[in-house]
Amino acid sequence: MNPARSKVSGAPVSRTLASAARALASGEITSRVMVENCLERALDPLGEGTRAFTRIDAEQARATADAVDRLRKAGTHPSPFAGVPIAVKDLFDVAGQVSTAGSRVLSDQRPAQQDAAAVARLRACGFVIVGRNNMTEFAYSGLGMNHHFGTPANPWRRDERRIPGGSSSGAAVAVADAMAIAALGTDTGGSCRIPAALSGVVGFKPTAARVPRHGVVPLSTSLDSVGPLASSVSCCAILDSILAGEHVAEHAFEPVAGSASFAVAGLRVGLLGRYVTNGIDEPVAAAWERTLGRLSAAGARIVDLELSVLEDIPRINSLGGLVGAEAYAWHKRLLESRSHLYDPWVLQRFEAGRSQSAADYIETIDSRARVQRTVRAATDAVDVLIAPTVPIVAPRCEDLVDVETANRTNLLLLRNPALVNFLDRCAISLPCHPRGEAPVGLMLIGDTGHDRRLLAIASAIEKLLDAA
Amino acid sequence: MNPARSKVSGAPVSRTLASAARALASGEITSRVMVENCLERALDPLGEGTRAFTRIDAEQARATADAVDRLRKAGTHPSPFAGVPIAVKDLFDVAGQVSTAGSRVLSDQRPAQQDAAAVARLRACGFVIVGRNNMTEFAYSGLGMNHHFGTPANPWRRDERRIPGGSSSGAAVAVADAMAIAALGTDTGGSCRIPAALSGVVGFKPTAARVPRHGVVPLSTSLDSVGPLASSVSCCAILDSILAGEHVAEHAFEPVAGSASFAVAGLRVGLLGRYVTNGIDEPVAAAWERTLGRLSAAGARIVDLELSVLEDIPRINSLGGLVGAEAYAWHKRLLESRSHLYDPWVLQRFEAGRSQSAADYIETIDSRARVQRTVRAATDAVDVLIAPTVPIVAPRCEDLVDVETANRTNLLLLRNPALVNFLDRCAISLPCHPRGEAPVGLMLIGDTGHDRRLLAIASAIEKLLDAA
Repeated sequence: MNPARSKVSGAPVSRTLASAARALASGEITSRVMVENCLERALDPLGEGTRAFTRIDAEQARATADAVDRLRKAGTHPSPFAGVPIAVKDLFDVAGQVSTAGSRVLSDQRPAQQDAAAVARLRACGFVIVGRNNMTEFAYSGLGMNHHFGTPANPWRRDERRIPGGSSSGAAVAVADAMAIAALGTDTGGSCRIPAALSGVVGFKPTAARVPRHGVVPLSTSLDSVGPLASSVSCCAILDSILAGEHVAEHAFEPVAGSASFAVAGLRVGLLGRYVTNGIDEPVAAAWERTLGRLSAAGARIVDLELSVLEDIPRINSLGGLVGAEAYAWHKRLLESRSHLYDPWVLQRFEAGRSQSAADYIETIDSRARVQRTVRAATDAVDVLIAPTVPIVAPRCEDLVDVETANRTNLLLLRNPALVNFLDRCAISLPCHPRGEAPVGLMLIGDTGHDRRLLAIASAIEKLLDAA
Repeated sequence: MNPARSKVSGAPVSRTLASAARALASGEITSRVMVENCLERALDPLGEGTRAFTRIDAEQARATADAVDRLRKAGTHPSPFAGVPIAVKDLFDVAGQVSTAGSRVLSDQRPAQQDAAAVARLRACGFVIVGRNNMTEFAYSGLGMNHHFGTPANPWRRDERRIPGGSSSGAAVAVADAMAIAALGTDTGGSCRIPAALSGVVGFKPTAARVPRHGVVPLSTSLDSVGPLASSVSCCAILDSILAGEHVAEHAFEPVAGSASFAVAGLRVGLLGRYVTNGIDEPVAAAWERTLGRLSAAGARIVDLELSVLEDIPRINSLGGLVGAEAYAWHKRLLESRSHLYDPWVLQRFEAGRSQSAADYIETIDSRARVQRTVRAATDAVDVLIAPTVPIVAPRCEDLVDVETANRTNLLLLRNPALVNFLDRCAISLPCHPRGEAPVGLMLIGDTGHDRRLLAIASAIEKLLDAA
């Protein structure tokens, strides 16, 4: 990770929204300097910027920062976060830009007429968009590799060029490398949480219906969720509040804006059994056991849940699931005319959806509802579910050249996060590894629609883990 | 239609819920006598009872009526309608009975453990269930013919044995012949409104989400709606209120319980163009013109709407539509093992769903949403839409022996009512023909979720038409 001190100002770089807002409010820094700090890293030819972004809007970002600095001077800035640099994933509409979704397939489309709903909400708060983050082509994999725009390397042991995780690959690397203070991602089966876990940042997937998806290139209309990646739970909580169209609380500088704080002591924490720990590697197992020990020591009550119903999920999704059908339906016409422009590895993923029947699809919807009911009944008595976000640390890109290995690794990375989308719940991944070791994510899963409660619990657990 | 005077008591038979409730409240009649009056007709070997019902529960109905009479004497009856005889379509679960859905396919299923949600709400108000109404097998046609249980003849020119309309065929005939004061039906593409129109009663299809569908054999999970058939708009409004789980208003004896009354003068009435009048026959055209004249004369403002988007609907549904896919998905396993038990004409209707792909189905959902948005924008300025419920009067059963003719007639009957299910709106069919002539239904269509408003408008228009 780059050093957290700016060459431009010499001042420490704000890594959280709260510290950025404080620094801007006190006049210690301007938006322009904050934006220059980010651009300096994003444009560094020795850095990952060219692979973490598909497009960097340096001039527009500078001009916007200057204007926001003037608003702030006039006392008319729209929110405490006005002037904070942010990045958006390449599948969000930004007025005047083409939403290419990490692909060459859409590059000749007309520029968007207006911002996606989520982008508009950020812009209304005065965030400064520094660029569009690279991603897995059409968000259709958890590895984060992209053969069109290059694969941004994981911040851990960068010279080994490990995968960042995807699909919001550039978002995680941009946050880790301080090319933006936060990034806007999407999550259909883990696309905010997998890169967060593998790259050592925080990624939040809200309940799908919480944030409007208008103006987003869809992958799966049933599962797509719009969420942030950032350096802390508090950052995610602030952004979630803005993205959900809630009032930005006056307490936005507090750890979790607008939520009652939770004590870890007495917290009922549910474990999901072998479904989420099969295939776990040694570093993840060590971090996981250590985290469970910490939670227990702090007074949390860890409950083993009987959830054999989870074993049905692979069978339910064996014909491609909702993603397979819905992704194919959206791409059908493009696949007819432009299949040569897709990355062949991504292209093969559309095959399952092609042969799925309407009856299969309807049966999947019914089975999903049945599993949701069973899980709800079995988890009623706990406050939060936890799991390793992914069971392995980031593998090296060169070890994923073989198609079979790539497919197997992809399924392994998607398994735990995708469970949350299947159940239509909310979840957050936060780092739980010892400093300097391979990043490992702890996933906390909340109930459908109880996003703020989950964020409050996550904030308490983050504090516990940071105190170590 | 049978004479409206009871052989049992000699008293006039109550035909509406309001008059039945008044007669019960005043002690002029008991529930037991009311039930006997209905059973007398249902069990008349010269009547249509054996074809209007798949099962008549005479002894249980009598015992229930006696018990409700005791409750009323004790002043502890649960609603003003306690003791009123009602019939339920053969696809509703009634505790202890097999839900055969007008078929032989399900006859060896286990009896239902509990009442369907809608049945439970009626029972909680003290309604007395006299039996299960015959229907089109699995509700999968608008003709109302049933080769397993016989086809109840239309009340008009009974000796000509015209179709009653379907799929709630027995429900309409039971109400028309006073075998029950009202009946509980379902409507996926017109199944409450087509038999109401052809048989001269009132049929209401609520917005699909308004009444829970738990415990109902499904045809199409996207479109199925639970609604009443009865003798008046007021009856339907009272039953709708109960079925939707609303408080039964103290004003339940008023024309439309709990709704502001609408004046026809100044009412903005929208016409849907040729889509709903193509193929209209002479008696329906005459009734339709006469009705439009009445509405105009009473001060309604008739507005021709530009709705060419409706012409897209047949193309959108050309692969079987939502019904085709969802019906096939539910029947898939039964079709594999028991297809020989289906009526061959009904069986062929499942073919479209078999070959529909998941992508086709998803495209239908998207196209439906697009048409809904266009129609909503085009109809914002009117209070209600109107159309002939169906464009023809009831044909004779013998003229529908040919498969092609049956298919063509079925599509013609379904076209206008199914439009409402496709748009996810609510609608009611009420008689608009001169007394003694062939029944013709006028369909009033309300906005999604504005069911009570539609019922209030329908009440005003019913009053206008009755005054003629």
